[in-house]
Amino acid sequence: MTFELTILGSNSAKPVFDRHPSAQALQIDNQIYLIDCGEGTQMQLTRYGVRNGKINHIFISHLHGDHYLGLIPLLDSFALNSRTATLHLYAPPDLKRAIDLHYDISNGKLPYELAFHPTQDKQAQLILDSNRLQVYSFPLQHGRLPCTGFLFAEKKLPRRIIAHKIAQYQIPFTQINDIKNGADFTTSDGTIIPHAELTTENRVPYSYAYCSDTAYTETILPHIAGVDLLYHESTYLHDLAQKALERGHSTAQQAAQIALKAGAKRLIIGHYSSKYADLQPFENEARAVFPFTDLAIEGKCFVIGGV
Amino acid sequence: MTFELTILGSNSAKPVFDRHPSAQALQIDNQIYLIDCGEGTQMQLTRYGVRNGKINHIFISHLHGDHYLGLIPLLDSFALNSRTATLHLYAPPDLKRAIDLHYDISNGKLPYELAFHPTQDKQAQLILDSNRLQVYSFPLQHGRLPCTGFLFAEKKLPRRIIAHKIAQYQIPFTQINDIKNGADFTTSDGTIIPHAELTTENRVPYSYAYCSDTAYTETILPHIAGVDLLYHESTYLHDLAQKALERGHSTAQQAAQIALKAGAKRLIIGHYSSKYADLQPFENEARAVFPFTDLAIEGKCFVIGGV
Repeated sequence: MTFELTILGSNSAKPVFDRHPSAQALQIDNQIYLIDCGEGTQMQLTRYGVRNGKINHIFISHLHGDHYLGLIPLLDSFALNSRTATLHLYAPPDLKRAIDLHYDISNGKLPYELAFHPTQDKQAQLILDSNRLQVYSFPLQHGRLPCTGFLFAEKKLPRRIIAHKIAQYQIPFTQINDIKNGADFTTSDGTIIPHAELTTENRVPYSYAYCSDTAYTETILPHIAGVDLLYHESTYLHDLAQKALERGHSTAQQAAQIALKAGAKRLIIGHYSSKYADLQPFENEARAVFPFTDLAIEGKCFVIGGV
Repeated sequence: MTFELTILGSNSAKPVFDRHPSAQALQIDNQIYLIDCGEGTQMQLTRYGVRNGKINHIFISHLHGDHYLGLIPLLDSFALNSRTATLHLYAPPDLKRAIDLHYDISNGKLPYELAFHPTQDKQAQLILDSNRLQVYSFPLQHGRLPCTGFLFAEKKLPRRIIAHKIAQYQIPFTQINDIKNGADFTTSDGTIIPHAELTTENRVPYSYAYCSDTAYTETILPHIAGVDLLYHESTYLHDLAQKALERGHSTAQQAAQIALKAGAKRLIIGHYSSKYADLQPFENEARAVFPFTDLAIEGKCFVIGGV
């Protein structure tokens, strides 16, 4: 399977230095989960070869313009592409008002269903539960504006069948899925073969957590514990920790502390303030605390798993 | 003076082939008049070195997304740049609702005054009358959605003083502006020198007209008669004239016919449908009718006057 993240926008509010406002594409097999959608996201999708047609779920963390103002243009382009598939949108409830207003004043109408799933920032919430994936939203701390992070957690995988056991016990193909999922097998002479003898443990499910925008807060730790890959915003370097706090943002050092305390395997930092032309100090500062840190850079792809 | 137009976005709705949705920057001396503001306009301004700080007037033709969805991100960036100067916005009244809603749901507030001047599409209207420029809106025909074109007409210039007459009659500098504007001069011995002897006619004022989006309509001719430069949309080639009509758009041939009938000096065509990768046929088709046609291309600058 594919489980990989492409950075489409790495900057905070103002687009500068060819850095764009927040947007990420998480590809899981043949589906793309779009996370935040700042201005120009559809151009970035084209630029990095991410196929629009695979996007069926979009997640918006909060309603600052740099996290959502590329959404309506993208919805419009889906319409121009004659999309018919339902699009699921997970976002603070007020976003629905902005979308409705646009289609009112532009005298437009979407030719596909837009299924709106309002998020809330009071507690963690399961917002998508498919056969292979669960997505949770959880509260971030970003001033007065409701803001949530997202956890994308692959479901526990069925056990793997041991190939030579199929021949040994003449197991019909029709029973293999049941055995993978825990059923024992009864041979033609009535002997029960426990499924543990026929299968092995599968790999650990993959997970990805997105935390932007937020001040440093340990309240998120239970929601992101042990993730394979964590994105945590780092708008400032730590010499501006006070400014970060006042504005509901974090520093690179703080992002790394969160990754360390959460037991994350890897960390990506981003949402850089437009005041920084050089990002190397961000990497240095974060790696001093958590070595497995990388910078979010437009077009960069982080492979979580490909097995 | 400077009077020149920079194309920021040349395409119709969907951004493709590195062509962007509608936006143009008309620079007149030290002011930039932004005309339409599709998604990504602020990135295009940066890309082509057009300075945000010189923009004090923005004109929006209509509320299809490809003509206005870059506006709120630009307003946000002005705010982040600590803008204090008043920004004047000329647009259909419903745009105000969309702006107000954004600052409501994003818990934001502009640190500068936004002066909103609602346009209407029933008749031509003088919407800006400054000491050197008049801007008119006039109705276009774009289906049911209110849509206006804009005429930017430099005011009649004062006459030019003849340099050697200043010495000849010992004209004080304090009187020169009055003479340029038609006052006669009285010498110290009481002789009246008519201003016509002291001055020469100035150049003809420059003008630019913007017509997008619209079906072919000769109702616009009186409003754009004799302009130095005309932009007229050409979404399709003429073999799709019927489709153009149904969708409230024009063909390259029709744009050229309008330029010819209006007595325009030069024509720019643009707002190409995303179905066309190659634009050469647009130029060929229009030039067959009106030779002084150029294609709108991102970053291209059309100098109307520089005297």
